[in-house]
Amino acid sequence: MNAIRTMVLSLVVLFTNLAGAAAGEPRGTGDLGIVIERASGSLAIVEWSGRRVLGRVEGLGDLSHASAVFSRDQRYAYVFGRDGGLTKVDLLEMKIAKRVVQGGNSIGGAISDDGTLIAVSNYEPGGVKVFDAVTLDLVADIPAAYGPKGALSKTVGLVDAPGRRFVFSLYDAGEIWIADFSQGPNPQLTRFAGIGSQPYDGLITGDGRHYIAGLFGEDGLSHLDLWAGKPEPRRILEGYGRGEEKLPVYKMPHLEGWALAGGRFILPEVGHHELIAMDAATFAEAGRVAVHGQPVFAVARPDGRQVWVNFAHPLNDTVQVVDVPSLKIIHEFKPGPAVLHMEFTPRGDEVWISVRDADKVEIYDTRTFAKRGELKIAKPSGIFFTARATRIGL
Amino acid sequence: MNAIRTMVLSLVVLFTNLAGAAAGEPRGTGDLGIVIERASGSLAIVEWSGRRVLGRVEGLGDLSHASAVFSRDQRYAYVFGRDGGLTKVDLLEMKIAKRVVQGGNSIGGAISDDGTLIAVSNYEPGGVKVFDAVTLDLVADIPAAYGPKGALSKTVGLVDAPGRRFVFSLYDAGEIWIADFSQGPNPQLTRFAGIGSQPYDGLITGDGRHYIAGLFGEDGLSHLDLWAGKPEPRRILEGYGRGEEKLPVYKMPHLEGWALAGGRFILPEVGHHELIAMDAATFAEAGRVAVHGQPVFAVARPDGRQVWVNFAHPLNDTVQVVDVPSLKIIHEFKPGPAVLHMEFTPRGDEVWISVRDADKVEIYDTRTFAKRGELKIAKPSGIFFTARATRIGL
Repeated sequence: MNAIRTMVLSLVVLFTNLAGAAAGEPRGTGDLGIVIERASGSLAIVEWSGRRVLGRVEGLGDLSHASAVFSRDQRYAYVFGRDGGLTKVDLLEMKIAKRVVQGGNSIGGAISDDGTLIAVSNYEPGGVKVFDAVTLDLVADIPAAYGPKGALSKTVGLVDAPGRRFVFSLYDAGEIWIADFSQGPNPQLTRFAGIGSQPYDGLITGDGRHYIAGLFGEDGLSHLDLWAGKPEPRRILEGYGRGEEKLPVYKMPHLEGWALAGGRFILPEVGHHELIAMDAATFAEAGRVAVHGQPVFAVARPDGRQVWVNFAHPLNDTVQVVDVPSLKIIHEFKPGPAVLHMEFTPRGDEVWISVRDADKVEIYDTRTFAKRGELKIAKPSGIFFTARATRIGL
Repeated sequence: MNAIRTMVLSLVVLFTNLAGAAAGEPRGTGDLGIVIERASGSLAIVEWSGRRVLGRVEGLGDLSHASAVFSRDQRYAYVFGRDGGLTKVDLLEMKIAKRVVQGGNSIGGAISDDGTLIAVSNYEPGGVKVFDAVTLDLVADIPAAYGPKGALSKTVGLVDAPGRRFVFSLYDAGEIWIADFSQGPNPQLTRFAGIGSQPYDGLITGDGRHYIAGLFGEDGLSHLDLWAGKPEPRRILEGYGRGEEKLPVYKMPHLEGWALAGGRFILPEVGHHELIAMDAATFAEAGRVAVHGQPVFAVARPDGRQVWVNFAHPLNDTVQVVDVPSLKIIHEFKPGPAVLHMEFTPRGDEVWISVRDADKVEIYDTRTFAKRGELKIAKPSGIFFTARATRIGL
C-alpha cells in the first residue's frame, strides 16, 4: 500500500509541475522585444512595459550588425546574423525554434507584408534568398547577377513593400531590384540600372510608397516612387556636400533609421557632421542641422515630433534630440561609452538606448528626458520590439 | 486495490486535462482581434493570420455602437458598451477579466500612450471617467460642466494624445478639452470654447498632432494643432456644403475612420453623397469624390493608397474603394445586407468586413479584391485587431 501511496503522490507532484512548467503564466507578446548581445552571439528577451529582462537565448552565431523582424503573431523573432545565419527565436519559450546558415556573409532582411516570406540580403554570394516563415525552407534564390559577365553584386537596403514584394539595391552594380512574389514562389523581377554609384543602404517610407537608396560613391540619393504606373529611378539631393571637405567615414549611417517626420525626411549625411532635411513632397532640401559628430542613426519618435541621433566613434557617447518643426537641438546627454542603437516604445513615450561598453541598456522618458530604468545586458547593440511586425518597411 | 488503481487513473486524466486546459499551446497575441456581436452582448475572438474564430465571450451588456482598445501586451481588450459598461476581456483565456458599469450612457474610449489609463466618454452623466488599466479602479472623474449653470455636456470624439493626455469634445457646449495626466492622477484641464456648433465626433492624426472635430450644427470642422506653443481652435472647410441641398441623415459618419492618406485627409461629408479631400498641410479643400450613398466609414488601407467606404441605410449593402492619388473609385461590390465595419490587417494585405444581416464576416485581398475567407459570426458589427495597441489615436 505504501508503494502505491508513494506512486500517487509522485504523480500528483509530477503533473502539478508539468502544468506549471508547460503553461507558465499565459502572456501577451505585444510588449516583448530582443536586445542583441553581439560579443556572445546571444540575445536578451525583454518586456518593455515592465522594463525588465525575461531571459536569454544563446547560440546565434556572429551577431555583428545583426537585425531582426517579427512574425505576425509577434511570437517569433527572425534574427539576421553577419555570418549568414538566419535564426527563428521563440520569444515565449525562450529558445531557438529553427536556424539555418543560408549564406557566407549577409546583412539584413525583411518579412513580406502577409508574413509568409523571410528575405535575406547577402554579400557573399551576392544576392537575396527567400525562405518560408514557418519552416525556413528555401523558397527562392535570387542571384544579383549584373553586367556582361554576370558577376554577383553585394545586395543592400533590403525592405518589404506592400503586395508581397521585396526591394533591394546592388552595391557593385548601381541597380535597384523589385522581387514581386504576388503570383507565387517564383518572383517577377523588375530591374533599374544606373541608379547611382555604390548604393550602400536603403529605406522605404511607412506608406510603402518611396524607396530611397543612399549612395556612397557620390553625394546624393536615388529615389523610386513605387506608386507610379511605371516607376523610374531619379537622383535627389544631388551634390548635397558640394564644396565642403568630406570627413573620413568611420561608420556608415544607417538608412533604416532615417526619419520621416512632420512632412520632412531627416537624413544623416555621409562624411559630414550634419543632418539634412528634405521636403517629403518635393524631395528638395528643406534645411540642415549641425550635430555633434557623424550621425549613425537619426530615428523619429513614433509621433514624428522629435528625432534622436547617435554618432560614430570616437564621439559615440552622446545622444542629441532634434525638435522637428524648428530643426533645433533641444536636448543633449551622454548615456555612456558606445551608444549603438535606440528603439522607441510603439507609441513613443519611452526610448531604450544600448550603451555597449557600459554593458547596459538605459530607458528614458521622451518628454521629460528623465531616466526611467536601466538593465544590465552584456555588450548590447540592436534593440528590436515586436511592434515592428505591424509596420511596413521595418 | 481496484479503488486505488481507479484513483491513480483518475488523477492521471485530471492532471493531463489541467495541463492542456491551463496551458493550451503558448501563443502570440499580435494576430488576435475581436468582433462585436451586438445582438447577443457577446464577442468573437478571432485570429486574422489564420482567418478563424478561436472562441466567444458572453455577458458584455449592450454593445450597440461598441468599440475597443487594447493593452500594451496585446492580451486584453477594453470594450466600451453603450450602457456604460467597461469590460476588460482576456483574449488568451477567453473570459471577462473585469467589468464595471461606469456610466448610464456612454460612447467610446481611449487608452493613454503609456498604457496605464483607460478613459471613457459619457453622455449620461456628461463627462469623461478615467480608470486604472490593470484594476479598472476609478482614477479621475471629469464632469463636462459648462455655462453659468454648470450643465453637463455629452462628451464625444475622445482620443489619446502623446504625453498621457486625452482630448475630447463637448457636444452641447461646443468646446474641446484636453485632460493632461502627465503629472499624475489629477489631470490638468485645458478648455477651448466656441469651437463650433455641436461637435459630434473627433479624430486625432496618427502623429498625435492634429485634433479635428466634426460639426453637426454647421457645415465645417474645428481644428486644433497640439504641436503649437499655444494651441488655438480654428474653423476649417467652412460651409463645404453651401448651396447644396442637405439630405436627411440616417446615420452619422464616424470620424475615427477618417483617412489621412497621401498627404490628404479623405472625409465623409454629413448629409451628402460625397467624400471631401482636404490638404493635410493647409487644410484647404483638395477635391471631392461622388460616392454611392451617405458614407459612414472612410478608412485608409494602412499604406494610404486606398480608402474603403461603406454607407448608411438603405444603401448599406455596398462597399466602394477609392484610389487616393487619382481620387477615382476603382472597385465596387456588394458583400451583403448591412455592411457595418471594416478592419485592415496591420500591414494592409487583407480587410475584414462585417455583414450584419448575413451573420458573417468576409475577408478580402486588398490588391486583387478576391475573397479570401468567410466566417460565420452572429450579427457582427465592429471589428478590432490588437495591432491598434501600437498606434496613436486608435
